[in-house]
Parts: sequence; structure tokens; C-alpha cells
Amino acid sequence: MKIFIKDPLILDYKDQEKQFHPYRANIVIEDDQIADITNDLPADLSVFDEIIHASHCVALPGLINAHNHSPMSLLRSFSDDLRLMEWLNRKMLPAEANMNQEDIYWGALLGIAEMIKSGTTAYADMYIHMDQIAQAVHDSGIRASLTRGLVFLDDDGGQRLREGIDLVKSWSGKADGRITTMMGPHAPYTCPPDQLKEVMEIAKELQVPIHIHLAETQEEAEKINHKYGKSPTEYLYDLGLFDGDYHVLLAHAVHLDDHDIALLQNMKGGLAHNPFSNMKLGCGIAPVYSFLEKGILVGLGTDGAGSATSLDLFKEMKMASGLQKLDRFDPAIIDAHTILQMATINGSTLLQMDHQVGRIEVGKKADLILVNIHQPHLVPHHDLVSLLVYSAFGQDVVTTIVNGKILMKNRELLTIDEERLLYEAHQRAKRIVEGI
Amino acid sequence: MKIFIKDPLILDYKDQEKQFHPYRANIVIEDDQIADITNDLPADLSVFDEIIHASHCVALPGLINAHNHSPMSLLRSFSDDLRLMEWLNRKMLPAEANMNQEDIYWGALLGIAEMIKSGTTAYADMYIHMDQIAQAVHDSGIRASLTRGLVFLDDDGGQRLREGIDLVKSWSGKADGRITTMMGPHAPYTCPPDQLKEVMEIAKELQVPIHIHLAETQEEAEKINHKYGKSPTEYLYDLGLFDGDYHVLLAHAVHLDDHDIALLQNMKGGLAHNPFSNMKLGCGIAPVYSFLEKGILVGLGTDGAGSATSLDLFKEMKMASGLQKLDRFDPAIIDAHTILQMATINGSTLLQMDHQVGRIEVGKKADLILVNIHQPHLVPHHDLVSLLVYSAFGQDVVTTIVNGKILMKNRELLTIDEERLLYEAHQRAKRIVEGI
Repeated sequence: MKIFIKDPLILDYKDQEKQFHPYRANIVIEDDQIADITNDLPADLSVFDEIIHASHCVALPGLINAHNHSPMSLLRSFSDDLRLMEWLNRKMLPAEANMNQEDIYWGALLGIAEMIKSGTTAYADMYIHMDQIAQAVHDSGIRASLTRGLVFLDDDGGQRLREGIDLVKSWSGKADGRITTMMGPHAPYTCPPDQLKEVMEIAKELQVPIHIHLAETQEEAEKINHKYGKSPTEYLYDLGLFDGDYHVLLAHAVHLDDHDIALLQNMKGGLAHNPFSNMKLGCGIAPVYSFLEKGILVGLGTDGAGSATSLDLFKEMKMASGLQKLDRFDPAIIDAHTILQMATINGSTLLQMDHQVGRIEVGKKADLILVNIHQPHLVPHHDLVSLLVYSAFGQDVVTTIVNGKILMKNRELLTIDEERLLYEAHQRAKRIVEGI
Repeated sequence: MKIFIKDPLILDYKDQEKQFHPYRANIVIEDDQIADITNDLPADLSVFDEIIHASHCVALPGLINAHNHSPMSLLRSFSDDLRLMEWLNRKMLPAEANMNQEDIYWGALLGIAEMIKSGTTAYADMYIHMDQIAQAVHDSGIRASLTRGLVFLDDDGGQRLREGIDLVKSWSGKADGRITTMMGPHAPYTCPPDQLKEVMEIAKELQVPIHIHLAETQEEAEKINHKYGKSPTEYLYDLGLFDGDYHVLLAHAVHLDDHDIALLQNMKGGLAHNPFSNMKLGCGIAPVYSFLEKGILVGLGTDGAGSATSLDLFKEMKMASGLQKLDRFDPAIIDAHTILQMATINGSTLLQMDHQVGRIEVGKKADLILVNIHQPHLVPHHDLVSLLVYSAFGQDVVTTIVNGKILMKNRELLTIDEERLLYEAHQRAKRIVEGI
């Protein structure tokens, strides 16, 4: 497959300046790669399978959602505005108990469809029944890092852990290399030290990163402190998780003080910041600015739609910026360039995909999106990065390309039958919540 | 003009329950009014000028943006991520000095186009050169409450005040009744007591409400305290603004303590809450929940795009909910129904338009929008109000109707030449910021 993208504004990130710079050029995609970025028009355009006219668009590296539980999209709008325990016990647990394997597939596909349509080209998923999710990733064409969430609150005879290992062994590198995997000890409060240590050993052996929730709520911090006499971050630090041997994806990381953050300085990996989820669940403001000050990586995520409702990362960019400004009473504390970097480059590093994606450069995998900026809410163009971060939304994305394949063209999904998907989602969602 | 909207889900607000309830029916619009809401199909559909098939849509009362400075849309993305004084002195003031009357017209039209395309059917505007803005409201078909902002920091021989009065006298009730007006003393820190008192007298005489900024920043609160030995709210209270003689639209109202809020209990009018602007400028979290507890009206606004970048009220709904939950560490402190009420019913009362708009009811003016919920990010439909507030965005609005006239149909603007508008906006914006 050869694709010619004609005349978009490309955003190029300059590491020294920590800024994106726009320039106009054509993008040539061959197979799964960006083969050329050029101002020349090829002599023979007929060699291309697809020519996309994009002079009204910005070409961005595809956004990367660093934390999601995709099948929960089936529970979108089922349990908003509730306190955590009510949300969990009265709504989520009974509903999840009603979900069968096919529901997981269709729920994942629903989340993936929303992500593709809002410009996300790669994401991190932690859930159960991971074969189903991997199949949905395979079928849809998106890129993903998949994790079996491991909760050790009862004795299941090692079943969950085996599933986590099986996922790594069966799916890593599959779907033309679009699928990678991690080990997923769920959180400090669901993983006692021995089990967590065992998972860490396995991750090291299998050479995969670790995806774990950390300090999402004040209650969690209190629980861990009560049990172990330390903060959740200290708990993980003392187990050796941040000593540099493990690449770690920390989801949320809201309740960390300066001492906790200092413990992360040698870590590999970083934070998946989920601003809207943190707001909507009343968790607090993650100390993102302090992370950045200490040189710790911060990417952006949405969390699952069961609580966060929406998987639109353009919305998350607005909130990520707004929350830091609010927290410090300072509009200059963080800028749009840093935020866009979080949603692209940083996400790719967090998911250990930075050798492949995160930038529009020759030789990188062709994971990119085209955003239509010829619309009233995206005019004038004083600063394209400000525009994209503060005024654009997922629906401004007209084209989404992953691994050199067009997944959405003029807002139409090409790899997913959208009508069938909506039908399945409605039917299954109705059945799942019946009687709850 | 007769319009038949076939089979949408209509959201009906029950005052006793403080909840919206969806039901399916047809909406009949005749001239500027909702003439009927019925489950019957008329015998003869050929009497209608327009039949809109809407079974995939929710019909909502048009959203109401209670605080905006529309021409600043020309300065969108020109000055983000800056501290207030730098934003003002280095960017906004020089740019605004370069804006001529035609720029004001096109800037207002740009803001109006964005509002119509994101489901806003009425808004409050405070700016200068109000004849130009009134003309843009007239031409576009939107509904607006217009205010000449009055800053009394120098002696202009009464020019601004005369313009404020002229606006009220020339434009109130114009454009088929779509235009109303207010008097606009800008803010406590720009209006000394004598001048503010004079504006209040004039507003009483002309029988129009007052639109004023209040306590947006901590610096403002300190400034007023330094000058008068009281809070900004006390300053206005002592002048009699909250004694019930005036309908007052307070923009922002971030820095109010419980004592300040208690001073508002007899006021008519209420607060225009601008959550994203407050975040983006690092102002703080307005005590919205405390306002609601005391029975004080809260509507939603965006503030001008010069600072807030985006005029999408769906985004503001998400942030309004998120900020209160965050402020109280309680996801149940405010729910989606309350937020949607703010953006519709409360806005209409704040702008003194509640006898005409804010609900979909027979006899009300036909100001309504259709939101396409047959999309991956708006499926399944466990709770329509949650979906709209937490997952929908402005671009999900497919049809916008104001005063019985279709302003947008299938996302196409019918009263504004969008190509011409984008051209004018680009050219003018470039000229305005040249050399700054």
C-alpha cells in the first residue's frame, strides 16, 4: 500500500527548544512506514493506491492513550456521579459479572472505534479476557500495549497470573507487530508484597514493562499507610520497582508528595496522567508539574469509559493544561507544546514504542492523523499548537492512519463495520445491566 | 416557515425531581414558536417547509453561553499560556488597538459561527463597538443579550457610557426580538463607586439588567481590599447591587468566601460560571456548589476566545462538573442533570429569556438543537444526560434552530457564508497582530 498525503502542515518537534514547528510538505507512506517527507511532487502519482489532499489539515503523530480499560465502554454513562464504593459495588461489579467473552470483544471494539475516530492510534489497555481484546486490536488495525490486570485479593490457584503470562507469550509482536504486552499488577492495595515481587520477577524474565495503578485516591493512600506504615509510592519503591530494572507505567499517581516524587527519580517509564477521570471521580490533581521538573516522563490517558465516559484525548489535553495552571494559580506553568508532547512523544516512550511511533519522521511507522483546521472554531491560525490543544476536539480528525493503513477516511471507519458495532453495543449493554 | 422534526428523543426537565426525562415525540415549529409536541403524524406532511428525520438524535433546548466577548475570536491562539499582565499588555491591548469596526463585525461573526456549530442558540456578549456585534447577531440569526463594557479608568467625557445607553435604546427588541441588552459596568476594579452607582441608576431607569465581572482573580480581590478595605463582593453589595432591585449577571465569581456568598442571597440574577477560562488563566475554582446550596442561580459561559480559545459549551459542562467534584473530593457533589440545567434553563433565566427559551415546550420560542447520538462515543444509552454532559462535544450537534429558523443543517451553516467568514478571519487576524 502506497499513500501520498499532499500538502499538510506537519508539526515537527525540536527537542532542544521543546517546541513543535509547523512546515508544509508531502508525506509518502510505503507499506507500514513513512518513506519520505518531501516538497517535490512525484513524477507519477499513479503509483499510489491513495492520494489524500490535506492542505486544510495539520498532520500530527497519532495520539497515544496511555491508560484505558477498553471493554468498559459498554458501561459508558451507566454509573456517573456516584461515590467510589457505590459505583463499584452497586454498578460496576454486578455489570462486569454479566459480561461474557463476546461482550469483551465488542466492548473493546467500541472503545477502539471511539479512539480511532478521535485521533488515537495507540493505547495501553489493562483488563481481563485479554484474548478478546487482542483480537479486537488485531481486527481494527489500532496499535496497543495489552495487560492482564492482576488482583491478588483471593486465591485463584494462580489462574490470573497464568493468563497474564499467556498474554505476553501468545500476543507480543502479533498483528504485524502492532501488539505489545506488559505485566499488570493492578495496584498497591490489591497486590501484597510477595505476589507483586513475583510479578516483577516474571516481567524481568519476559522482558516486558509493568503497568500498575498508583495512588489514585486519598483512601488508597490511607489504606496502604494503615497496612504498611508507608505511602503507596514508598511501598512500590521498597519492593525495588523504581530502581531502574523495570520499565513501569504508573496510572494516575495523584497522591504523591515531594518525597514520593523524589523516589521516582531513577525509575524507567513514567506517569499516565488521566486528568478528566481524576476530576470526575473527585480524586485530586496529579502533581504533573513536579514530575516534569524532576525529568520524569508524563503521558496522557483517559481511563476506562465506565468512569471517564469519554475517550477523547483532545479533551484530556485541555484538562491536563488547565489542572496544572489551576493548581499553581499560574497560566504560564505549563504550555500547549508540553501538553501535545505528552499526548504523542511521551506516550510513545511510556509504551516503549518510541523507536517506532510518536513523531512524523522518515523511517518511523506510519501512525498519524490529519486534523481539519479549516473550520470556524480553529481559525485564525496564530499558533497551531495552541489551537490543537485548546480548541480542537477528536471529531476534527478526518483521517487516521496506523502502521501505514488508513483506519478512518473522511470520518468513516474502514476496518470496523460501524453499524454492526453500534447494534452489538446497544444489545449487549442492555443485557449486561438488566436487573442491576 | 413550518418545520416538522420527526421522532427525536426530547429531554423534558421536571422541576420537582430536578431531573431531565427523555421521551420520543415529534416537534412542530410554526414561525418562531414550538407549536406542538405530538406523537401523531399530521395527515398532510406537505404543509411543512422542512421535515427533519431525527430518530437518531436527542432534541435539547439550545445551549446558552452566559458570558463571552465574541470579537476576541480573531485573537484565538494568539496569547495562550501567559501571565495576566503579559497577556494584557504585550498581546491583547496592542491587538485590540489594531481592530477596526469591520474587524469587530467579522470577529463577532466568527464567534457566532462557532457557537451555532456547537449548539449554542443564545449568548451574552460584553465588548465595544456594539453596533457591529448587534449587526452580526442580526445577520446570523442567533439570540443575544448585548452589553457595552464600561471601564472608568480615564475621563472620556462620558463617551463610553453614552454608547452603552445608545446600545440599549437602539437595539433592544430588534432582530425579531432576538436582541436584548444590558448595562455593563466592567468590574469592581475598573468602576469607582460614583460611576458604578450612576450606571446602576441608568439600568433601573432603562429597565435592563447589569452584566459585570466579579472576583475573577486573587489579585483583583487584593486590589479592591487594599483600596476599599472590603472584598469585591462587599464592594458591590454596599452599593446596593444585590438588594433585589437589579437583575445582575455576575461573570466568574471565583474568589468569594461564605460571607460573600451570603451577601448574594437576595440578589436577582446569578453567576455565569466559566470553568475552562478559570482553569486556563489559573484563577481558581468558583464555589459553584455553595452558590447552588444557597439557591443562587448558576449558568455557564466560555469567556472570550482570546483567552479561553474555545467556545464549546459541551466542553464547559464537563469541566463545570469536574471542578466541583475535585474541589470537594466528592464525585456525587454535583450531577449531570444539574450541569445540563445550568447550560440551558439557568442560562435562560440569567439572560432574562426564560419566558421565551430554555425548554422544549409548546408556546416557547423554537430555540433547539439536535444531537446525533448514533456514534461510537455516544453509545450505549444507559443515561442520555450523562452521555451528553460527559461524552458529547459541540460537533455532535447536527442541527441548530433559533427563533424557528434553521441556522445549521447537517453541520452546514445556512445564514453565514462560512468560506467568506474563514477568509475574512484569516486576513484580518493577520493584519491585527502584525508587528506585535
